[in-house]
Amino acid sequence: MNEIKIFCPATIANLSCGFDVLGLCLETIGDEMIIRKVKEKGIRITKIIGADLPLKTEKNVAGVAALALINKFDSEYGFEIEIHKKIKAGSGIGSSSASAAGAVFGINELLGKPFTRKELVEFAMKGEVVASGSEHADNVAPCLLGGFTLVRGYNPLDVIRIDSPEELFAVVLHPQIEVKTSDSRAVLQPMISLKSAITQWGNVGGLIAGLYTTDYELIGRSLQDVIVEPLRKHLIPNFDQVKFTAMHHGALGAGISGAGPSIFALCKGLAVAEKVAIAMTEEYLKTGIPADTYVSKINPIGVSII
Amino acid sequence: MNEIKIFCPATIANLSCGFDVLGLCLETIGDEMIIRKVKEKGIRITKIIGADLPLKTEKNVAGVAALALINKFDSEYGFEIEIHKKIKAGSGIGSSSASAAGAVFGINELLGKPFTRKELVEFAMKGEVVASGSEHADNVAPCLLGGFTLVRGYNPLDVIRIDSPEELFAVVLHPQIEVKTSDSRAVLQPMISLKSAITQWGNVGGLIAGLYTTDYELIGRSLQDVIVEPLRKHLIPNFDQVKFTAMHHGALGAGISGAGPSIFALCKGLAVAEKVAIAMTEEYLKTGIPADTYVSKINPIGVSII
Repeated sequence: MNEIKIFCPATIANLSCGFDVLGLCLETIGDEMIIRKVKEKGIRITKIIGADLPLKTEKNVAGVAALALINKFDSEYGFEIEIHKKIKAGSGIGSSSASAAGAVFGINELLGKPFTRKELVEFAMKGEVVASGSEHADNVAPCLLGGFTLVRGYNPLDVIRIDSPEELFAVVLHPQIEVKTSDSRAVLQPMISLKSAITQWGNVGGLIAGLYTTDYELIGRSLQDVIVEPLRKHLIPNFDQVKFTAMHHGALGAGISGAGPSIFALCKGLAVAEKVAIAMTEEYLKTGIPADTYVSKINPIGVSII
Repeated sequence: MNEIKIFCPATIANLSCGFDVLGLCLETIGDEMIIRKVKEKGIRITKIIGADLPLKTEKNVAGVAALALINKFDSEYGFEIEIHKKIKAGSGIGSSSASAAGAVFGINELLGKPFTRKELVEFAMKGEVVASGSEHADNVAPCLLGGFTLVRGYNPLDVIRIDSPEELFAVVLHPQIEVKTSDSRAVLQPMISLKSAITQWGNVGGLIAGLYTTDYELIGRSLQDVIVEPLRKHLIPNFDQVKFTAMHHGALGAGISGAGPSIFALCKGLAVAEKVAIAMTEEYLKTGIPADTYVSKINPIGVSII
């Protein structure tokens, strides 16, 4: 096998209560990548379609992640990477993570799988540095592992994968506005109240328990964020109304996807998710800002060969 | 049935990462209570053996909890309560909670179980106000429900019970010193760093995941507290050495039980737990402060009829 075409799914990080630790993998939204094994050693980004991103390996998320992998595995070949971006950069659904995860997954397949998917997370994290300035795993972990993921801690990296309940669906509304990562970082407070933190970790515990016991109501009750959402929601026009609409139409919970501006809702069953998606879209139309809306099952596999 | 004798188990709250939300129930340590149904309405504490606690109903934890119950259920009888304290007050293993939980459990039994165990938690919480000034459920919930409990949130109270893995054992070392609740509260900081909070809720998620998947190593890795333990451990002579000794002898994790001064360790298997208990006790002897040490399986039932 000298060439591989892969699907690199979008992901939702944070999931309200789990800032910087929780994430899930989507099924219906994602990039495509082609990875080619070639004689010339090294990593080359040969083509990027659908986004204006750097072709220089060391400046490209996929390139840096790929370099991290081949620095750990002495290959006699090199690799060419073609990226077909469908997830918009800055949308809050893991655009850079999809590229980083896709690159390391594809190269690992062409090398005969020397690394497990969990081991690939560390390489993909190196790519994230290019996009956000820090190594974080809350999007690359669900992209590589599928389902829900919990990053229990770093040093060493400790990622736990959790199956999604069968009937869980995600709705994502992506408003066509740019929220700069620097802005969404700037609104965060370095100090928070112990009281809010206790509320938050009660909810993290509840969400994890809800996932293991397929308790949809508990999942819904746990999707609360008293720390980050109150600060970041002001960067997303009409956030409160859209969230209210989602809940009013039967969503289990709703919040900001990653650093935003995308808004997500979790729903039990496809029928509810589709109703919620329509209602959220109609509500958002009132802002005059165009938005894309997606409905997706939770992707149990993660990045995969097409 | 006009009289009932019950076992009211000790409990470990917080469990390192889960300050104010997590707890577990012990099997080998607990008070006994006798509850008697009598013609004269109201609640009377008729006897307290083993502790110097108020007999006046409105000043007694068990009395106040019992009053909360009978205020919600119009009984034609009254109840007498005898308390045989074995858990020392101020030990950090839920002494007041055992009394509050025992009272409401016993009366509920004599009334023909109008309330579920979960419903009893709210009444028992009223008793906690007498002991600590606030309604909290992190000890009364595991005492009433057994196993592990997560208090996801209050308003309304949302308690999740989680089975303990079969081979999990707790060691509790209770140094015979008094740590005033006011002192252990005073060292807490009302504001904490977002970074520490993220570490903490990653570990809460990890601990819950470890319990559901019977992953002892994950349970161990998650028993970390970067927020409260660093502040409170100075109130407990030799804490660091005892914790180090527990870990060195094979404990999965160790920390402060409740507000202290008791130190707990969780272990896989009775043999390891007994070895850890001996090592912790020997280490503590060096302080010259007497200490009691207990080894216990996690109690799957909670408060029970003897």
